[in-house]
Amino acid sequence: MTAPAPLAAPPDRIVARYRLETADDPARAADIIAGEQSSGTFVALARETEGLKEKAGARVERLEVLDVVDRPGLPGAKQGPVLRRCLLELSWPLSNMGPSLPNLVATIAGNLFELNCVAGLRLVDLAVPPAFAERYPGPRHGIAGTRRLAGVTIGPLIGTIVKPSVGLSPEETAHEVAQLVAGGIDFVKDDELQADGPHCPFEERVRAVMRVVNDAADRTGKKAMIAFNLTGELDEMRRRHDFVLAQGGTCVMASLHSVGFVGMVELARHSALPIHGHRNGWGYLSRHPALGFDYAPWQMLWRLAGVDHLHVNGLANKFCEDDASVIASAKAVLTPIFPHAAMAAMPVFSSGQTVRQAAPTYAAIGTTDLIFAAGGGIFGHPGGVRAGVVALRRAWQAAVEGTPLHEAARQDPDVAAALEIGR
Amino acid sequence: MTAPAPLAAPPDRIVARYRLETADDPARAADIIAGEQSSGTFVALARETEGLKEKAGARVERLEVLDVVDRPGLPGAKQGPVLRRCLLELSWPLSNMGPSLPNLVATIAGNLFELNCVAGLRLVDLAVPPAFAERYPGPRHGIAGTRRLAGVTIGPLIGTIVKPSVGLSPEETAHEVAQLVAGGIDFVKDDELQADGPHCPFEERVRAVMRVVNDAADRTGKKAMIAFNLTGELDEMRRRHDFVLAQGGTCVMASLHSVGFVGMVELARHSALPIHGHRNGWGYLSRHPALGFDYAPWQMLWRLAGVDHLHVNGLANKFCEDDASVIASAKAVLTPIFPHAAMAAMPVFSSGQTVRQAAPTYAAIGTTDLIFAAGGGIFGHPGGVRAGVVALRRAWQAAVEGTPLHEAARQDPDVAAALEIGR
Repeated sequence: MTAPAPLAAPPDRIVARYRLETADDPARAADIIAGEQSSGTFVALARETEGLKEKAGARVERLEVLDVVDRPGLPGAKQGPVLRRCLLELSWPLSNMGPSLPNLVATIAGNLFELNCVAGLRLVDLAVPPAFAERYPGPRHGIAGTRRLAGVTIGPLIGTIVKPSVGLSPEETAHEVAQLVAGGIDFVKDDELQADGPHCPFEERVRAVMRVVNDAADRTGKKAMIAFNLTGELDEMRRRHDFVLAQGGTCVMASLHSVGFVGMVELARHSALPIHGHRNGWGYLSRHPALGFDYAPWQMLWRLAGVDHLHVNGLANKFCEDDASVIASAKAVLTPIFPHAAMAAMPVFSSGQTVRQAAPTYAAIGTTDLIFAAGGGIFGHPGGVRAGVVALRRAWQAAVEGTPLHEAARQDPDVAAALEIGR
Repeated sequence: MTAPAPLAAPPDRIVARYRLETADDPARAADIIAGEQSSGTFVALARETEGLKEKAGARVERLEVLDVVDRPGLPGAKQGPVLRRCLLELSWPLSNMGPSLPNLVATIAGNLFELNCVAGLRLVDLAVPPAFAERYPGPRHGIAGTRRLAGVTIGPLIGTIVKPSVGLSPEETAHEVAQLVAGGIDFVKDDELQADGPHCPFEERVRAVMRVVNDAADRTGKKAMIAFNLTGELDEMRRRHDFVLAQGGTCVMASLHSVGFVGMVELARHSALPIHGHRNGWGYLSRHPALGFDYAPWQMLWRLAGVDHLHVNGLANKFCEDDASVIASAKAVLTPIFPHAAMAAMPVFSSGQTVRQAAPTYAAIGTTDLIFAAGGGIFGHPGGVRAGVVALRRAWQAAVEGTPLHEAARQDPDVAAALEIGR
């Protein structure tokens, strides 16, 4: 199939696109889903008049049979002689729920995945009317704010993750950050497993790390951005945010699925710093292709909630995701939500990233508005952390200039040495 | 296989049980998962010393190969000649994250579903140490509080859902509730699609409905419990809760996945009323058996967050879930989390429930501490709403007394007529 055009929403309706598998008659299945998610139910209701349906019913805007599949993606559904995969677009009146992010979620991703006629259902696209932009300002800092706070005007932010993920003391963490900062790194993040455990309390860690970061900034004028993982209850997150701000920090991080939509909206309202959104758990929402969410609609919800950075995995990563999916995710994060309110977030590339991924990543997305996080690609460099960071920066510069990597390696021994990592 | 014993956690560790599919060597896969979710990463780290591993590493507590499967549950994983399904138990030091619900979630259900060695991964059980009970009081009202507020001392709460789900005005909603209250209903809930849309604003709906409910309570002494769906941003949910309380309401409802853990903890802290937790979206977490969550660990997280009622679907429901799964869910909701702090919530049965499901439900769970919500089973009764409610109550009484349903039908014309519904 050719990819369908991007969705657009009229001012008064929400539109969602799904990939549906059904052994039922597709038109009947579409009507059941539309009914269940609006004014209908399993049985006919006297009070569900035509007028009420017109006012509050979901509409099937588009239904196309894509192909016939030989076995159901998911067990438990109604059986039938032919199993069809379809593209389904539904729309709802905005007046059913108003511009409310939590109620949008219940409408587009509520009780529909379990319906008996559903042998597979995946939300693949979403468009919401501008009323949502009036209610939700989106990322407060985004790309421009992140670049300003990190002091990086061109090229991607070269970043890394503190490892081991968990187990280091605050002083040991600061010692590791000191090496990274001395190496000229732009961005460092806590692991999502490191928040405020007794072995590495949040405030002690922030104090120890920011001492190192602030000292370096005083000496060099460059302050590395550190995404401190403040995931916790709301009062804890607010207190931790205030502490980071008071210590001169420039970023906070939270695990999106641990916090949830309501908590993230609150954190974003409170935060004076960019919010680095960690997608851990994304696998359970996405790993079966006939179930759950594509990244595009999912990330839109979090941008509306106010998240500034969103993880997209990386090319040739060490997880299960293929490169096409990674690039689609990064593009989604950069795609405007509304013509008048782009709400772009910064995509975060990570997992096994080295100098080799710079050129193909740039070729695919055509921008350097991103965070490029490498672990082994920095710590594994034979010339040390500084050489690792320099090599990544040069590789990106070469990608932008159109210089082949082998040519960059001939000109720059740090890039040449980086090519040997993991060989 | 025989079901493994329930999990128990020592005072200083968290324990999670998974069903893993892998084409890798199972022991290697287990080590990779344990490493990725604690102190390890894809490559060996100089700083991950034996001492650090001992302090912060996740441990493989149990690994049993269950069987060999012929095709992977999920695409994208590392291939191999033999694909094995295993039972895997991991434990983590509590000191990695402390008794923090959001950080518990990132640890047990974070970046592990996407690992390359994972051809299937499902969280099937969870045990947390008592430190969590000190931090999280669990449901504030639970079964006893709900019974007291609903004025139902024996038998299940007989309930229903306002239909059409969305599209009725506040006055039309109140009119429907008036019929239900006149029929002696114990419990009524908003649909999860009805929150605060412009056609049916929350406060107007609550005011109109509570006028009816309070009037009936003044006349009869019985006040039906209405679960008003207050799903929204945190300030909205607090304001709406306060309004329900001020109007004499006795319950509020929220969509769990729309709100998230942090928002639900805040709502529960604020709430003076039982919280009816709606699980819409549960399908995307559970419908593929090799991915996501079993209900048992999932519901435990929400009980810790403070939710009082949890949906479990119903026997012979109209969705994809089989009866064994429904009963396992209801039992999970009633199973104590800690020996000294049961934190039981009230299971909510719904979807196509009639007099026929009373006896098998009671036989399977051995208690009437539940909400039994019927739509067609009440509105479809030829004798009207009151007869529908009476028939359901008698059917439950018969189930408890061990009277067969056909015998109860011979003694009671309302039960007899109820047997004709949907015939």
